[in-house]
Amino acid sequence: MAIVVQKYGGTSVESIEKMKQIANRIINRKNQGDDLVIVVSAMGKTTNYLTSIATQISSRPCTREMDVLLSTGEQVTISLLSMILKERGYPSISLTGYQAGISTSGTHTKNKINDVNTEKIKNHIDQGKIVIVAGFQGINESGDITTLGRGGSDTTAVALASKLRCRCEIYTDVTGIYSVDPRLYKHAKKLKEVSYEEMMEMSSLGANIMEPRSVEIASKFNIVVYVASSSDEEEGSYIKERINMIEEKSITGLTVNDDILMVTLVDVPYSSRTIATIFSNLAKNEVNVDMISQTSPQDEKVNISFTAPGDQVVLIEEALMEIKTIVGTLEIIIDRGCIKLSVVGIGMRNQSGIAAEIFRLFALHDINFKQVTTSEISISYTINNEDKERAVTLLADEFNL
Amino acid sequence: MAIVVQKYGGTSVESIEKMKQIANRIINRKNQGDDLVIVVSAMGKTTNYLTSIATQISSRPCTREMDVLLSTGEQVTISLLSMILKERGYPSISLTGYQAGISTSGTHTKNKINDVNTEKIKNHIDQGKIVIVAGFQGINESGDITTLGRGGSDTTAVALASKLRCRCEIYTDVTGIYSVDPRLYKHAKKLKEVSYEEMMEMSSLGANIMEPRSVEIASKFNIVVYVASSSDEEEGSYIKERINMIEEKSITGLTVNDDILMVTLVDVPYSSRTIATIFSNLAKNEVNVDMISQTSPQDEKVNISFTAPGDQVVLIEEALMEIKTIVGTLEIIIDRGCIKLSVVGIGMRNQSGIAAEIFRLFALHDINFKQVTTSEISISYTINNEDKERAVTLLADEFNL
Repeated sequence: MAIVVQKYGGTSVESIEKMKQIANRIINRKNQGDDLVIVVSAMGKTTNYLTSIATQISSRPCTREMDVLLSTGEQVTISLLSMILKERGYPSISLTGYQAGISTSGTHTKNKINDVNTEKIKNHIDQGKIVIVAGFQGINESGDITTLGRGGSDTTAVALASKLRCRCEIYTDVTGIYSVDPRLYKHAKKLKEVSYEEMMEMSSLGANIMEPRSVEIASKFNIVVYVASSSDEEEGSYIKERINMIEEKSITGLTVNDDILMVTLVDVPYSSRTIATIFSNLAKNEVNVDMISQTSPQDEKVNISFTAPGDQVVLIEEALMEIKTIVGTLEIIIDRGCIKLSVVGIGMRNQSGIAAEIFRLFALHDINFKQVTTSEISISYTINNEDKERAVTLLADEFNL
Repeated sequence: MAIVVQKYGGTSVESIEKMKQIANRIINRKNQGDDLVIVVSAMGKTTNYLTSIATQISSRPCTREMDVLLSTGEQVTISLLSMILKERGYPSISLTGYQAGISTSGTHTKNKINDVNTEKIKNHIDQGKIVIVAGFQGINESGDITTLGRGGSDTTAVALASKLRCRCEIYTDVTGIYSVDPRLYKHAKKLKEVSYEEMMEMSSLGANIMEPRSVEIASKFNIVVYVASSSDEEEGSYIKERINMIEEKSITGLTVNDDILMVTLVDVPYSSRTIATIFSNLAKNEVNVDMISQTSPQDEKVNISFTAPGDQVVLIEEALMEIKTIVGTLEIIIDRGCIKLSVVGIGMRNQSGIAAEIFRLFALHDINFKQVTTSEISISYTINNEDKERAVTLLADEFNL
């Protein structure tokens, strides 16, 4: 009998009816002899709903209390799913983050898992119970309730699997990991296997399958992660260590991140002190600055552009307030009409010329890009939103994705 | 600076708007120099709503999981109220039952408080914070989340005040404690003071102000409880130790309990074994049997009647199942058309003849009663629902309530 950690996301548990379907899957698996630890998210749009209540109180509600509020979402799900399993005659027990031994630290609403004390979970498994754990939450050293931020339930699942040294299965509303989001490119291919490295890169660049840090934990502990649909039996995709292949495909996937904005600071005095102040203020305000570009200085002035997540306007404006007091004439342009398009592949390491090929294609088809950055296994472009579909089709066709 | 525990019920915190009004009251009080511990219930009808979801899963959902589910209600309230206070610039912190050190034991959904470790609360008070505690919940020895059952938030508030050795204020949707429910008798008088003993009796007999056990704890630790409206400034009522008065009013209050049913078992074999089995089965099933009456035996058979809370039909039917296998011919009649009417007063101790007077009045006005029981400071009657208004007016007028 092997232990398996399964995670079901918000859409999979959005109603009692859906939870009953999930319970069927869990029971079938239990009957096959596996010991199960089930990690669940809040039902459907609960987290958004709770957040909207809090924003009736403040545009930036106290984050400690935000964690107290949001963590109720998963607590509701674990209790209901456990009730359903018990009603079906299967011993089960629900555990909140702190009951499951998940200790965390860091900034409220964005905590990191330090450790998981799995003793309690193991005891319940030894008693034959199906253990239902609230994803996304933990407890810090002061005994405060914490949450793990975006993708937190995946992180919980992978962290539990890492400590229990077992396989992790992520059930979601897609049937696996695709080279390109099938909604953007209908010929997209499902990938049977993806390496940790590629998955991390794809996740960082906008693929909404898993957060990069969950993949990072899986990689660190070498845990096999299986991603599949929670509603059908179609074979999914594996995230695992890359087995060396004779010939690697140069590009594995293409991702698009719609939820960005590009900020341009016009006529910034060309002094390293000013520029350092800008970015240290952004960092202090926890703005996730992504791609940065700068024009050549003219008359001792430069334009600086950077991209950031689309929901951080308030944080950015607050961070730039101080700069405005130093550089009174500073003009700030916020452009919401752009997206970030990236291609990812371990094979790029050994093949030069991918960037050149993309530049050629973009020029040929009149697609302008505003920024470009490269990593060892990816290239990303900031382009106008209206060029998105054309650019995706162009690259996906070219690289056979 | 004195510490005060204030409790606000579900109606008082049913919306963000209402919570903001409560926050004003709290801030005014804080500005007067008091240190505040605020106990809150779940918002409005949340507990009923969560219960209704659980009953979609099972008619008797697992009680351990029920506690996990229900406790989220107060957790939402504490986080939002604390956010509101912080937004107004007042340091505050929310604590769930377990964070507030409330340890409990007993049956899930009906736990009793064993002890409160107030160290954490005191630390936060010392730091000048307003402490917001989730009512109705705690944690048991195994680390499971527990709830305290009906009136649990009052119990939390009184238990905290008892340990902090301070005054307890219960804010609710009524303006105080009345001799008779003003909805039933419009001339009802507000009582300035009620003794613990009378309040316990009135609560046990159906007054919906506070649960008897909260009053019992207040009495045990001699904590003054103030009951008043959460929405206006009208002076409320005090529950406290009775100061000896030269002349006590014979009857302090009249209560009506609508939510009862009367069960009659027809032709039960007149053997103590059978009767003992009936009541031990009812006890095993946690039926709250209240008034019991029995006819004189005829042909070795008796009729037995008892009253119980109106929502325990399922429990009662299950409990009587076994009896039916012993006494195949047993006929069970469940009568939902009756209520329990009680008069309460410490003065009854020293005055005989109250019962006689009521019997006389009932006979004169043709009000039939099915059962009668007396305690040292109360008399209760089971009467038909249709006689309720007449009987209330009759007794309230007679005893000047």
